Amino acid sequence: MNITDINFDKKLESQLQFIIEIDKIKNIMRKSKLFDHSRFENDAEHSWTICVMALLLKEYANFTIHMEKVISMLLIHDIVEIDAGDTFLYSDKRDTVHTDEKKAAERIFGLLEKEQKEYFMNLWEEFEERKTNEAQFAAVFDRLEPLLQNYITEGYTWKKHNVTYEMVIEKNKHIQEGSKEIWKFVLKLLEDAVEKGYLRKG
Amino acid sequence: MNITDINFDKKLESQLQFIIEIDKIKNIMRKSKLFDHSRFENDAEHSWTICVMALLLKEYANFTIHMEKVISMLLIHDIVEIDAGDTFLYSDKRDTVHTDEKKAAERIFGLLEKEQKEYFMNLWEEFEERKTNEAQFAAVFDRLEPLLQNYITEGYTWKKHNVTYEMVIEKNKHIQEGSKEIWKFVLKLLEDAVEKGYLRKG
Repeated sequence: MNITDINFDKKLESQLQFIIEIDKIKNIMRKSKLFDHSRFENDAEHSWTICVMALLLKEYANFTIHMEKVISMLLIHDIVEIDAGDTFLYSDKRDTVHTDEKKAAERIFGLLEKEQKEYFMNLWEEFEERKTNEAQFAAVFDRLEPLLQNYITEGYTWKKHNVTYEMVIEKNKHIQEGSKEIWKFVLKLLEDAVEKGYLRKG
Repeated sequence: MNITDINFDKKLESQLQFIIEIDKIKNIMRKSKLFDHSRFENDAEHSWTICVMALLLKEYANFTIHMEKVISMLLIHDIVEIDAGDTFLYSDKRDTVHTDEKKAAERIFGLLEKEQKEYFMNLWEEFEERKTNEAQFAAVFDRLEPLLQNYITEGYTWKKHNVTYEMVIEKNKHIQEGSKEIWKFVLKLLEDAVEKGYLRKG
């Protein structure tokens, strides 16, 4: 059942083996629940939602963006979690996790031939560094989805992990680098969350 | 827990309500299993995979394509199944399902303001009609993923539903409209599947 049995073209074979390998992110579970509160979300589902968000909300970008690049980043940004696991945004380990993720990126994108490997490695690093317009805009949605999920599920993950309003602001304030308008909305959402008791001030 | 409680901007509110509504596709299950055979795949996961495929395999397109458009089609093409359900590719009902799906598209994209509603309705119709380069290339991946899944899971869905080699050819041959190279690969994959006993000739 290995795709190499088909003996077609080496490059296409390695690309399809990559597709089969990254399917594993469908079993990497996040800390946030679906909007209907029925179960935790996996990384593939998260990636799908934030891609739709980026397309739908592109009018709110602070600058002109190359949308294919934004979507490409969002599609592949969590692939490294196949090896490195999902690290909670508010965890202490967050700062040291990059080394493990880099190693994972080397292995997984390394399934591809040199040119595509380098393209995806660079794309992943660009997203992580959050310096370009595309990376800053992509980062908005990686953060907006869990904020909305927490609001809709009455602060489920915030309460469970003792996350405070101040922690949320600190870890999400870079949303404004990609979209001032969406950051304004997030501030209103958080105020309302505090008022309703979904989130506490520290 | 309704996003309108936040009382921010009507347009952004309707866009986020749309995001919350389409989250339901994470509970629409397909007939194919994940590559690891552990469980059935849902529509959000399927959409994620075929978007990555389109990006990764764009060199095999028969023509120059506008990738943002291809990805946009693939991201939203199954949203209609929230109302209309997943219809098996080899089912008799396949030809009559379009009316239900059109109604679903009207309701779901109708959550958006006029301009975006029309944009997504047109994009969905374009994908369905399969006449433009982008729609023909997008369609390649909507079909390639289940073919690969069936091969890797030793013909699970084919066997379960008595699907023959001839039926697979008939329902998938339009792959060649988008990519002659990928169609050549599919023909080899199907031959190998017949040889290994995963798929029977009718």
